[in-house]
Amino acid sequence: ARSYSITLLPGDGIGPEVVAVAKDVLSAAGSKEGVELRFKEMLMGGAALDAAGVPLPDETLAAARASDAILLGAIGGYKWDNNEKHLKPETGLLNIRAGLGVFANLRPATVLPQLVDASTLKKEVAEGVDIMVVRELTGGIYFGKPRGFGTNDKGEETGFNTEIYSVAEIDRIARVAFEVARKRGGKLCSVDKANVLEASMLWRKRVTAIASEFPDVELSHMYVDNAAMQLVRNPKQFDTIVTNNIFGDILSDEASMITGSIGMLPSASVGESGPGLFEPIHGSAPDIAGQDKANPLATILSAAMLLKYGLGVESAAKRIEAAVTETLDNGFRTGDIYSPGTTLVGCKRMGEEVLKAL
Amino acid sequence: ARSYSITLLPGDGIGPEVVAVAKDVLSAAGSKEGVELRFKEMLMGGAALDAAGVPLPDETLAAARASDAILLGAIGGYKWDNNEKHLKPETGLLNIRAGLGVFANLRPATVLPQLVDASTLKKEVAEGVDIMVVRELTGGIYFGKPRGFGTNDKGEETGFNTEIYSVAEIDRIARVAFEVARKRGGKLCSVDKANVLEASMLWRKRVTAIASEFPDVELSHMYVDNAAMQLVRNPKQFDTIVTNNIFGDILSDEASMITGSIGMLPSASVGESGPGLFEPIHGSAPDIAGQDKANPLATILSAAMLLKYGLGVESAAKRIEAAVTETLDNGFRTGDIYSPGTTLVGCKRMGEEVLKAL
Ligand SMILES: CC(C)[C@H](C(=O)O)[C@@H](O)C(=O)O
Ligand SMILES: CC(C)[C@H](C(=O)O)[C@@H](O)C(=O)O
Repeated sequence: ARSYSITLLPGDGIGPEVVAVAKDVLSAAGSKEGVELRFKEMLMGGAALDAAGVPLPDETLAAARASDAILLGAIGGYKWDNNEKHLKPETGLLNIRAGLGVFANLRPATVLPQLVDASTLKKEVAEGVDIMVVRELTGGIYFGKPRGFGTNDKGEETGFNTEIYSVAEIDRIARVAFEVARKRGGKLCSVDKANVLEASMLWRKRVTAIASEFPDVELSHMYVDNAAMQLVRNPKQFDTIVTNNIFGDILSDEASMITGSIGMLPSASVGESGPGLFEPIHGSAPDIAGQDKANPLATILSAAMLLKYGLGVESAAKRIEAAVTETLDNGFRTGDIYSPGTTLVGCKRMGEEVLKAL
Repeated sequence: ARSYSITLLPGDGIGPEVVAVAKDVLSAAGSKEGVELRFKEMLMGGAALDAAGVPLPDETLAAARASDAILLGAIGGYKWDNNEKHLKPETGLLNIRAGLGVFANLRPATVLPQLVDASTLKKEVAEGVDIMVVRELTGGIYFGKPRGFGTNDKGEETGFNTEIYSVAEIDRIARVAFEVARKRGGKLCSVDKANVLEASMLWRKRVTAIASEFPDVELSHMYVDNAAMQLVRNPKQFDTIVTNNIFGDILSDEASMITGSIGMLPSASVGESGPGLFEPIHGSAPDIAGQDKANPLATILSAAMLLKYGLGVESAAKRIEAAVTETLDNGFRTGDIYSPGTTLVGCKRMGEEVLKAL
């Protein structure tokens, strides 16, 4: 039997609850396909700050690197909000992304027919939306140097960052995005600000060059301001979107809110080789932590992405996705997606229902 | 009688049509308040490229500087899309902003009761939305240096830009935003990415410091990715938003699309002293240029902002706003905001109806 090791990073807030539930689903789906999964839990984020004084202990990164895939819950909370930068939970997240080299962040935003009413958009605008945002995750202004604080020629204090992309960085994320688009609707929209930024001009030039390797994918370009508008005006026009780190941060969150159910949305971060990092897109929701109210479906669907993109066991991923659909069809809803006429359940119970449906 | 000189920059596409109509409305509203307006038309954008080889001729900037306010139509078009950067119409726009020192861009996004159905958002989410985005316009990554193309330590070609803000730049835009918020709902939300970017950390620190000068304004902070979500989830939570140049570009466009009627939205760009620049937020719409189909209301409302923020003649601005409301109440609509049961009119006729209502 195939056997894989999975690093679990429960993190903070609702992280531990949703990871516990998703772990059981992951295990069960794997064994149905003859895949054995071994789990190792490690500290990250605020939990690591409290226990070890750093947001990403060396042992955690080492364990993650040595495993076949990583499932992360959520990190952060009010408690650490005013920490200095190197002691913020978020810094742990940025460091594990960089440390694993997971440069491609895949963030689907899908409006499920059962949940179309959860969107703030009109039904006819929201229904059928199925977008995949491919965000560059280890470059750009998040990591660019020089960065810091300084003094300008008028003697005033400044804060500065560098948006920078190399040809190699653009080419590799473009290839991932074209591959993803090819397996989806065959349309890729590259988002940049090439009418103003040199970093975007190079981005557009390279994405256009890589397109020749993918003649079956239809490439278009859009300015980021227009993309932010078009996501609201007519999100169905998009199939796959590829963009840089900061624009991807903004647009993928906008796209996810268009679905109206961010408690449902998973994400995958993968590199050229080595283990991928899988996590729900929602935050740590400290206000409902420990109350068995969290929606575990985003983490369960992240486990499905882990099986598909991380381990290549697509059949097991499909099982999980089908079980989630069935659970929704059976009317089970956590508070965030509840509507009259459905059955309100907690985090654990939702997990049990998915397990039953598996 | 007070007398002011106005520079008209019709620009490209539908620019000349909408500026012609707005000029008549501006003139009429001014004279009703005993204000005489003298107009001088100058070249900018593609029109200037074709006639003079540059997107912002020196005479245009000089005339603009010497006048009391500037009304701009729209710039750009397919024809110049592949021009080199210094020969793009957009570069003319960036240069006039910098040349005039108009660092504060005010972009209202208001859902008018007559047009609430134009929004793709559900009626209960869209109705009553009334947001003012205050965008920093002459700093940040748009103008930061160093910028350009280079080679990294692996010998790969790179493209790069610098996001940089000084204390002075942040303080002055913050003060404008607090003033604006004070005259509106008294709530200011500052948007940044202070969990990642040093430029944003300084932004947040200074905005927080300036808040002590405005104890009557309630200040909050939000990360840009969350702001992009919250605009979709519940836009009514926002009163005034202040943010940097690039985030403002993205969020103000997103906010404007939430109204569903970007053909209605004006903008004002003002500095510490000197003339302000007023323009509709829509583009040059080359596909409908010269067909008398454009909606002139955004430019007419920009003329109202010119009177209010540019010349301080608020009474004349109010006249225009009331006339626009009346024209909509009378059922007149251009194609972009048409719905069954209303009267479809062209650009000129819409202008005539506003003049009648004045
Ligand atoms: C927490 C933060 C650093 C992070 C980011 O900006 O990448 C988050 O917003 C995300 O999108 O995963
Ligand atoms: C045309 C472009 C350079 C400009 C900008 O990015 O500022 C436009 O999008 C705007 O918002 O006025």
